[in-house]
Amino acid sequence: MDEFQEIQEIGFPALIDKIKNYRGTAQKDTVHGIGEDAAVYKSGAKGKLSTITSEMFLEGVHFDLTYSPFQHLGYKLVSATISDIYAMNSLPQRLLVNIAIPNKISVQMIEQFFNGVETACKDHQIELAGGDTTASHQLLAVSMTATGSADEKDLVQRKGALNEELICVTGDLGSALAGLRILMREKKEWQESEGGHYFQPDLSEYEYVVKRQLMPQARQDLINAFNEAGKKPSSMIDLSKGLLADLKQLLSSSGTGAEIYSPAVPVSLDTRHVADEMKEDVDKYAFYGGEDYEILFTMSETDAGEFRKTFDDFTVIGKITSDNKTLRINTGEGETAEYDL
Amino acid sequence: MDEFQEIQEIGFPALIDKIKNYRGTAQKDTVHGIGEDAAVYKSGAKGKLSTITSEMFLEGVHFDLTYSPFQHLGYKLVSATISDIYAMNSLPQRLLVNIAIPNKISVQMIEQFFNGVETACKDHQIELAGGDTTASHQLLAVSMTATGSADEKDLVQRKGALNEELICVTGDLGSALAGLRILMREKKEWQESEGGHYFQPDLSEYEYVVKRQLMPQARQDLINAFNEAGKKPSSMIDLSKGLLADLKQLLSSSGTGAEIYSPAVPVSLDTRHVADEMKEDVDKYAFYGGEDYEILFTMSETDAGEFRKTFDDFTVIGKITSDNKTLRINTGEGETAEYDL
Repeated sequence: MDEFQEIQEIGFPALIDKIKNYRGTAQKDTVHGIGEDAAVYKSGAKGKLSTITSEMFLEGVHFDLTYSPFQHLGYKLVSATISDIYAMNSLPQRLLVNIAIPNKISVQMIEQFFNGVETACKDHQIELAGGDTTASHQLLAVSMTATGSADEKDLVQRKGALNEELICVTGDLGSALAGLRILMREKKEWQESEGGHYFQPDLSEYEYVVKRQLMPQARQDLINAFNEAGKKPSSMIDLSKGLLADLKQLLSSSGTGAEIYSPAVPVSLDTRHVADEMKEDVDKYAFYGGEDYEILFTMSETDAGEFRKTFDDFTVIGKITSDNKTLRINTGEGETAEYDL
Repeated sequence: MDEFQEIQEIGFPALIDKIKNYRGTAQKDTVHGIGEDAAVYKSGAKGKLSTITSEMFLEGVHFDLTYSPFQHLGYKLVSATISDIYAMNSLPQRLLVNIAIPNKISVQMIEQFFNGVETACKDHQIELAGGDTTASHQLLAVSMTATGSADEKDLVQRKGALNEELICVTGDLGSALAGLRILMREKKEWQESEGGHYFQPDLSEYEYVVKRQLMPQARQDLINAFNEAGKKPSSMIDLSKGLLADLKQLLSSSGTGAEIYSPAVPVSLDTRHVADEMKEDVDKYAFYGGEDYEILFTMSETDAGEFRKTFDDFTVIGKITSDNKTLRINTGEGETAEYDL
C-alpha cells in the first residue's frame, strides 16, 4: 500500500504549499497565479486586469443551518467570496454559484438562499452568471466563484508593504466571532432543552454581533473611497481567517515584519460585552476571530492622513518593520509578545 | 412554519428554472448569462469573448473512491469542467480547483489528485490558477471553475440549430456508462467477498470502457479542427448527461425538433460486449449514458461534408426538424419512438 500521511500531521498550510507546485501550463497574460486573494490576468483591454477567486463552503464546517437563515447564508457566502476581489483593489462583476442539495432542504429554502445571493449581488452590482445545481447525500455544499476587474495601475496585492508604513484595518474586529459565540450558546441551550420548541432565541440584545456573524458586508465602500481619493495602499488582504493569521500572510508575501499596538485594535462595545459575558479575553476575539471580512491595508503616514479626509472608517493598529522574522504585539502595558514569521 | 416542498417533488430541472430568475445586476458586457454550457462576456479586447463555467462534484454522488484512482479522478473532473468551455467553440485557459478534504484522505492522495489535475491541464494548455482548500467532515467534495476565450465570430451556442441540418456526434456513445457498469459489478463482488482483499480487480478485458469512465478526454481536437477547417457548427452541446437529455436541451434552446436514426448512433464493440454481458439493451447505454464528454453539433450537409476532410471522428445520427414539439427516434426496423419536447 502507498504511504498514508494524515493531513493534520502536516496541516493545511503545508498541504496548500504542496498544491501550489501544480501549475499546469502558464499563460502569457497571467499577472499573478496561486498565492494572492484572487488570481490576476490581463483582460485584453489596454491597461485592464481581470481577477478571479473561488471558495468552497460546507455545512457543518463553514456554516450551521440551525442558526443561519437561508437568506442570510446566501448573502454571507457572497460577501465571503467577493471580499477577496475587493482585497486586490478590484471590483467584482460576475458570480457563479454551485450548490449541492440534500433531501432535507426544500424548494423554499433554496429560493430563500438565492434571494440572499441576489440581494448581495444587487448591493454590489454583480451579475449572477451561472453555476451548477446538483444533489448531495446529507450536507449542503456551496461553491462560489467571483470575477472582477481592475485598472492595471490600481492593482494591490498582499506583497508590497514597506518598512515604516502604517497598518490599517477597517471597521472593528472580532464581532463575527462574538456573534458566533452567542449563537452557539443559544444552540446548546436549545439542544439541552429537548422541549421541541423551534430554535428562535431572542437575540435582540446581541443584534450587532449576530448580524456581523450571519450577514457580514464586504467592504466595497473602502475600494470606492481609494478610487475617489486617488489613493492606493501598498498592500492589502481581507480579514477572513483572523487578524493574526491574515496579517502573517501579508507580511510573509511582503517580506517584512510588523509591530501591532494591541490597545489600538478596534473592538466594538458589543463585542466587549460578549467577551465579558463569556469570561473570555476580548483580545482573543480581535486577534483570532475570523469572518469579519474587514480589510487590512498598509499605507505611508502621509497618504493615510490624506485618505482619512475621504474615508474615516479605519484605524491604525501598528507599523511595518524591516525585521521580516518577527511579528511583535505591544500590549501597551509594558509587555510584548513575539510571533515568528 | 414555512411551506416545505421537497425538491424531488418538482425535480432539479424545475428547481434550476426557479434559480434562473435570480440574476443580480446585469453587466453591460454580458453576451450570455445563465442557460448555456458556459457564461459568455466581452473580454475587453476587440472581437474577443471570455467564457466561464463552474461545476461541483461530490463523493458518493458524482464519483466513488472505491474504484476511482485519485490521479484519474483529478484528470476526469478537469475533462468534465472544460468540456463545457469547448462546447462554446472556445478554448480553456485557466482552472480554479476548490477541494474539501475529510480525514480519511491522505496527503499522498491529494498529491495524486493534483497530479491528475495537472496532467489534464498540460494536455489542454491550461494554467492551474488558484482555488480553495478546506476540511470536510466525511466526504470529498470538489468544485472546479474554468475560464476560456473565443473569437466573437467563432462563438457557438446551444441555440442556432436550423431545420434540415445534420446532427453529428464525436467518438462513440455509452462507453462511459459501460465502464461504470463493470466497475460497479466488480465493487459489488468485492463487497460480497468480505475477504478483505484490496479492490484490485483484473479489468484488462474491459480496458477501453473503464478508461472512458475513469479518465474521459474533453474534445479539444474537435475545436481545433473547426478552427483549422474554417468551419463553425450552427449549435453545439457537450454530452455529459446523456444523448437524449443533452439533445433535448439543444433542441429546446434552438426551438427545433429532431429525428434520430438510432442504428447510426456510434457505439463501440466494447460497449456492445458489456451490454450483452449485462443482458441490457445497448441502445440504453448510447441514449441515456452520461459522462462520455463527446460533443454533439449541428451543421449543414455541405459544411459537414467539407469538414470531414479535416476531421473524421464524427458520425451523423439524424436531422433537425421544424417540428419543435417532437424528438423522433427511428429504430430502423419500421418503429418510431416519439418524445415530447
